[in-house]
Amino acid sequence: MAALFPSPGTKTELEEGSALTPRFDANGLVVCVTVDARDNSILMLAYMNAEALKLTLETGIAHYWSRSRQSLWRKGDTSGQTQKVMELRVDCDQDALLMRVEPGGDGGACHTGQRSCFYRKVVTDADGVKLVFDT
Amino acid sequence: MAALFPSPGTKTELEEGSALTPRFDANGLVVCVTVDARDNSILMLAYMNAEALKLTLETGIAHYWSRSRQSLWRKGDTSGQTQKVMELRVDCDQDALLMRVEPGGDGGACHTGQRSCFYRKVVTDADGVKLVFDT
Repeated sequence: MAALFPSPGTKTELEEGSALTPRFDANGLVVCVTVDARDNSILMLAYMNAEALKLTLETGIAHYWSRSRQSLWRKGDTSGQTQKVMELRVDCDQDALLMRVEPGGDGGACHTGQRSCFYRKVVTDADGVKLVFDT
Repeated sequence: MAALFPSPGTKTELEEGSALTPRFDANGLVVCVTVDARDNSILMLAYMNAEALKLTLETGIAHYWSRSRQSLWRKGDTSGQTQKVMELRVDCDQDALLMRVEPGGDGGACHTGQRSCFYRKVVTDADGVKLVFDT
């Protein structure tokens, strides 16, 4: 497969340049934080390979790579929770993405039925560390 | 080294349980999105190993694992941008963390001098895809 994105350049080019040159990891993935554009809530964290990122850019609809299923994943195809991309950002060294979306369907993102995947807080008390639901 | 956290259990235990059982990856890391507690701005994305997570929980100050330096990293030790942990969350399948912090120093988080690492937007125009500074 021909490279879908240019190879990463120098540190200066990565951090200050205008070329999108994602630094995919050893598995060919880059991590993406996905946020609800309406209120900035953090919905989920997932991964994209080059094809998923290219499709996301071309269609304006979020595509990811499912690590558990090892397949390209157009978010919402089964759940209806399609994500319309309102803004995409890249971090300083181009190994992470931040995507602001308008979620379709019921407005949620998590397969458990919660709106956000981050529905539990870590709480430390006398008994130690535990998780508490807080949605 | 004795395990610092219990091993992950079943899917149901992971998603609905009250035990923090992070699913560290093949490199022993879990990804963490770090947000400014004052205005919910997304500051950075970094990684923790079990020791960094344990120290973060014990001290209330963000510790990470630097993949580039391959060392434990107490954020702010050189920059002054110490992060006081106000809230820590875990996602549905416990392979990602969301941390709300009060940043010290100049309030920023990025080594480039920007407040947030996500200081560039991906823009598509007639010339193709490019990055535009937007802080």
